[in-house]
Amino acid sequence: MSKEKTTGAISIAPFRYALGIEYVGAAYRGWQVQAYDNVPTIQAEVERALSVIANHPVQVICAGRTDAGVSASHQVVHFDSWAERNDRAWVLGTNSHLPDDISIKWATKVPGCFHARFSARERRYRYLIYTSPSRPAILAGGVTWTHRKLDVERMQQAAHYLLGEHDFTSYRAVGCQAKSPVREIRRLDVYRSGHLIVIDVSANAFLHHMIRNIAGVLMAVGAGDRPAEWALEVLQARDRCQGGVTARPDGLYFVDVRYPDLFKLPDTPLGPHFLPTSD
Amino acid sequence: MSKEKTTGAISIAPFRYALGIEYVGAAYRGWQVQAYDNVPTIQAEVERALSVIANHPVQVICAGRTDAGVSASHQVVHFDSWAERNDRAWVLGTNSHLPDDISIKWATKVPGCFHARFSARERRYRYLIYTSPSRPAILAGGVTWTHRKLDVERMQQAAHYLLGEHDFTSYRAVGCQAKSPVREIRRLDVYRSGHLIVIDVSANAFLHHMIRNIAGVLMAVGAGDRPAEWALEVLQARDRCQGGVTARPDGLYFVDVRYPDLFKLPDTPLGPHFLPTSD
Repeated sequence: MSKEKTTGAISIAPFRYALGIEYVGAAYRGWQVQAYDNVPTIQAEVERALSVIANHPVQVICAGRTDAGVSASHQVVHFDSWAERNDRAWVLGTNSHLPDDISIKWATKVPGCFHARFSARERRYRYLIYTSPSRPAILAGGVTWTHRKLDVERMQQAAHYLLGEHDFTSYRAVGCQAKSPVREIRRLDVYRSGHLIVIDVSANAFLHHMIRNIAGVLMAVGAGDRPAEWALEVLQARDRCQGGVTARPDGLYFVDVRYPDLFKLPDTPLGPHFLPTSD
Repeated sequence: MSKEKTTGAISIAPFRYALGIEYVGAAYRGWQVQAYDNVPTIQAEVERALSVIANHPVQVICAGRTDAGVSASHQVVHFDSWAERNDRAWVLGTNSHLPDDISIKWATKVPGCFHARFSARERRYRYLIYTSPSRPAILAGGVTWTHRKLDVERMQQAAHYLLGEHDFTSYRAVGCQAKSPVREIRRLDVYRSGHLIVIDVSANAFLHHMIRNIAGVLMAVGAGDRPAEWALEVLQARDRCQGGVTARPDGLYFVDVRYPDLFKLPDTPLGPHFLPTSD
């Protein structure tokens, strides 16, 4: 289907729906539909399945476009449709047309002023690190593996320097398209969960590769290559060349996005579902 | 390679090694090598990779032959070899020849009297259940999904009836090859971990399908289909036809096997690694 046709068709559709989506990114070239049809993306799979249930071409807008290899326990999208179906029909019907590594968790009708991207007030991600002399088989591709020992307290010290509103030029991809490099990090916790180390971060929004670049710096600090203060030096340099390596996408999960209460979106437990429930 | 050749060759090999292995069972027809070469099994993959490092055909004996779809965070095997390599070489070398869903976690030389199966004194498994209105994408195939709500306390009450030494005829597969149906269950705990329900069970040994048949009964009790006492009625009937359904293999993990201390096998943390570390 051509983009023009779909967009034109959707602009007058009467119903707007929001969906909560869980997916494993390993098999996809990221969220966003690519220029070439044969590139597997999560958006393309979701739109294809929704179009079957809606019985017309559907285009979705997401809260956060995840990179290749990045997973989500709680991505949110909205779409417009002529089809009036109940929440259960959207969830179960769409899931029956989706591959095993993508699942709709909930659906709900929202007012036309709701926008999955622009209405969002806060995003939250978790980055999972597995430290072990040998690679994992269970959750391979779903955790970032390092054979080095990491000092969680040092990582937490370094993380502290990044809290608050800053110019994150040193932590964003060179090709990042965002107009402003200023973002506000509201939470940046590093803790152990089982045999994993979790970097738990929320912000109003994130720049391209921002979390993976933060993870790269925190892991270098945790391994003892750099002092905790280096995270601050990198921040103040406002120069991507002063930053650390971009950590692998494998362990990154989009776990929450907050909207104003007036939209009454379902409250979903923080994921991924194998982590403890405590906040 | 023919079995005769391998067995004959190995009988005089001077070194015996033990390995700890983690794997995801989803892509395999179980642990054990099948009569036909083109059936994917974990044993075949491990033997193929070890044979490259040993530079001769290797056959392994495991602590517990897991079914198709069953995973392990801590399977133990032994094998005999002419090759004298250090532990690190066996681990890293073999892993470089294994697929992503199988990983050697440790290797150690053991005395010739060590036998991965016959020396084992206790096995432990964990069965992971994910309860949610819609199926999981993350860990799909690695947890058993039910859309029904389960009452963990009722499940724990039912589990209590199965503790101790009993004739588990009602809980074993009709085709089970074991001479005796008597096994001793030493632990059978049901608890929540994050958004998962865990059935944590250890015994001297298990019969074929025993854990999945126990899980089937406990899930029926948890869903309210049967009272907790039904677990005892099934046990006392000594008739497989009186039992519940065999629960799916998806959420079953082989997590520990205990040997006499004299063998000094490495102490590995209880898995799978995404669960809390508490015992």
